Amino acid sequence: MSDNIIDFTFLQGVKVVDFTQFEAGPSCTETLAWLGADVVKIENPKMGDPGRRLRPGQPDDDPYYFHQFNANKKSVTLNLKSPQGLATVKDMIRAADVVVENFAPGVIERLGLGYEDVKEINPGIIYAQVKGFGEGSPFEKNLAFDMIAQACGGSFSVTGDKDGPPTRPGMSIGDTGTGMLMAITILGALYKRRETGEGHQLQVAMQDAVLHYMRVSLATTGRTGKAAERGGSKVPGISNAPMGLYPCAPGGPNDYVYIMTSRANPEHWDRLLKLIGRENLVGDKRYATPADRQEREDEVDELISVWTRTQTKMEAMRMIGEAGIPAGAVLDTVELNDSDPSFEERGVMQTMSHPIHRPFKMPAWPVRVDGKASRLKSSPVLGEHIDEIMSEWLDLNEAAVAALKDEGAFGS
Amino acid sequence: MSDNIIDFTFLQGVKVVDFTQFEAGPSCTETLAWLGADVVKIENPKMGDPGRRLRPGQPDDDPYYFHQFNANKKSVTLNLKSPQGLATVKDMIRAADVVVENFAPGVIERLGLGYEDVKEINPGIIYAQVKGFGEGSPFEKNLAFDMIAQACGGSFSVTGDKDGPPTRPGMSIGDTGTGMLMAITILGALYKRRETGEGHQLQVAMQDAVLHYMRVSLATTGRTGKAAERGGSKVPGISNAPMGLYPCAPGGPNDYVYIMTSRANPEHWDRLLKLIGRENLVGDKRYATPADRQEREDEVDELISVWTRTQTKMEAMRMIGEAGIPAGAVLDTVELNDSDPSFEERGVMQTMSHPIHRPFKMPAWPVRVDGKASRLKSSPVLGEHIDEIMSEWLDLNEAAVAALKDEGAFGS
Repeated sequence: MSDNIIDFTFLQGVKVVDFTQFEAGPSCTETLAWLGADVVKIENPKMGDPGRRLRPGQPDDDPYYFHQFNANKKSVTLNLKSPQGLATVKDMIRAADVVVENFAPGVIERLGLGYEDVKEINPGIIYAQVKGFGEGSPFEKNLAFDMIAQACGGSFSVTGDKDGPPTRPGMSIGDTGTGMLMAITILGALYKRRETGEGHQLQVAMQDAVLHYMRVSLATTGRTGKAAERGGSKVPGISNAPMGLYPCAPGGPNDYVYIMTSRANPEHWDRLLKLIGRENLVGDKRYATPADRQEREDEVDELISVWTRTQTKMEAMRMIGEAGIPAGAVLDTVELNDSDPSFEERGVMQTMSHPIHRPFKMPAWPVRVDGKASRLKSSPVLGEHIDEIMSEWLDLNEAAVAALKDEGAFGS
Repeated sequence: MSDNIIDFTFLQGVKVVDFTQFEAGPSCTETLAWLGADVVKIENPKMGDPGRRLRPGQPDDDPYYFHQFNANKKSVTLNLKSPQGLATVKDMIRAADVVVENFAPGVIERLGLGYEDVKEINPGIIYAQVKGFGEGSPFEKNLAFDMIAQACGGSFSVTGDKDGPPTRPGMSIGDTGTGMLMAITILGALYKRRETGEGHQLQVAMQDAVLHYMRVSLATTGRTGKAAERGGSKVPGISNAPMGLYPCAPGGPNDYVYIMTSRANPEHWDRLLKLIGRENLVGDKRYATPADRQEREDEVDELISVWTRTQTKMEAMRMIGEAGIPAGAVLDTVELNDSDPSFEERGVMQTMSHPIHRPFKMPAWPVRVDGKASRLKSSPVLGEHIDEIMSEWLDLNEAAVAALKDEGAFGS
């Protein structure tokens, strides 16, 4: 198993000063860490990234959330309101390739670390900022969280039952979805910089980033001129029948299988009929074409459900898949953790060993390189890497670091 | 407006041979095109990318879907089953930096263009493959579409009403979400390759990629040991109250505003009470703490709804936002197109001019570089760039291209 897992070195030697917090920023810088960059979180000495403690209590109270978005990073605490702390972070920026921040609007500039300031320290810096709303938007000064960005980016409007209210999609596209688009742009800038040495200011807004994931619904609107609708488990505007969720044994809240027959592949319907023991209906004119089946969708769905209710979702997925029809069981988060040993064998899930917290199994970077996965390393303890980074990045000896400590650079 | 829009040159000179179709692959290669790479779709001469015609009819019947995922690319038709067609694509691969494909399992190998074959032609190639399920998964041979990957990746299980069935999230995370993770990895490989010249095989599975966007729910399971639940518009496990969707005037299907008070910021609740004209409740012990409000959530939600029902969602968003409380209107896809002129002013939405189809407004790459957006260019007409690419990439003169045409390399 473990020989499937290696240290990725694509970004070896790239230094990232990471001012990010919560998820949109940290998911971006973590991506650079997965690829081998040296990512150093600059944290408030008192509490650190507020993502360490989404639930009340002491620092590091909510390690699971923090682990997910800060694996493979390092941590340096700095009091940015002390002259020594500010000078130290400026020295780090001088040595760095990339700076990333996602503070509330105006905060980084008030710290004296806005792009104009940082560019003077290091003209070749790639300076990346994640905002809630874009500069120039009527809401540019507003705070945003994932749910706000998703509401304003359209994803609520296309999620939920046809006749019900808009619904929150369960994944954090407003946050991680935004972080990925920024990571792509940083990597593009780094590629060019190898040739030119030139720095850039990069900005993305979470609301704008959500649009990028909404393009199928926006295409529907291009075609119809109307707002894309909600459809429960179906996809409004795609008239493949049967398509959707079908209930399975033993009837738990996530015991369903998604089945998708394709209009482009008329055999799917015949194969499905054979599988569910309704071969007698092959060629039946009532269900001959996708349009016929769409017309009688409730009837068709019930035909299939009679069979799926007698199968577990995993068995249904296996049998329907083997019949050449796209199908997928609805897996919940416990099942994702426990039910498929191949996630661990393939390095898609790995277990974090941490100096303080218990071992934690979590998703690692899902793209494999030459068949190998990127090794999961611990998320950092608050301030864990002060000595290492002061030495490696700034070439300070022990006495110099001790002096900075005495002056309060690393403390609150 | 238009001086906000420039041609991005981060990937200038990078050549991509693009065998992708539908969305997961095309969204990945389009990203490289946004950043300035030369991305050439290799298309079946008869019909091209099946994403050109999700609805029945002739090629280019569904331009809206195709535009979204193929902007800024070029198209060369090649008959890969003819010796001349296959030889031509191999010549293109010899000249290229990146190959990307997302055919069904086994297809690219049967064409004689699997990684082992391509590596012999060009050892420095970055060869990227998007699969439905990972090699080594029990379902590695199964087909997947966005909905299948989302069902098996967990996102259905955390979307929908608390007591209702799993629900399809409206965004195509299984497709575009996967494409973004592959784009990041390709860019990492390109960065390293500038130094080493080394090629790699990259693979990602759509099911695995969905996990990357499910990490908040997986953190919940880390904490509770239980499957993350659905919560309608609320986020199960986050006990901020009030939080969620509130109905607005005039009561249409998407007339809601998302409000999120923060437990970390007790002033939010007092400010909200003042805004909705219930200053009398400031300090009321029944609602003093987030826990108290959680306890009386229905009551609290009704207090707020009485006020929101008298406001449009845009007015509610504006007023609540100005009071310093995170809030966002639920925008539908027509509103995203029409209601905020800043999307166009900022270059986040741009209009595609196309040689055949009518102009189409769509999202462009949302990350701005030095305040500028990447210019939206047309998606290609099938086979539009044969002459250009044969000349620029392969240095063939007109006579040589004419000979290839006669031999059927570009036709069906």
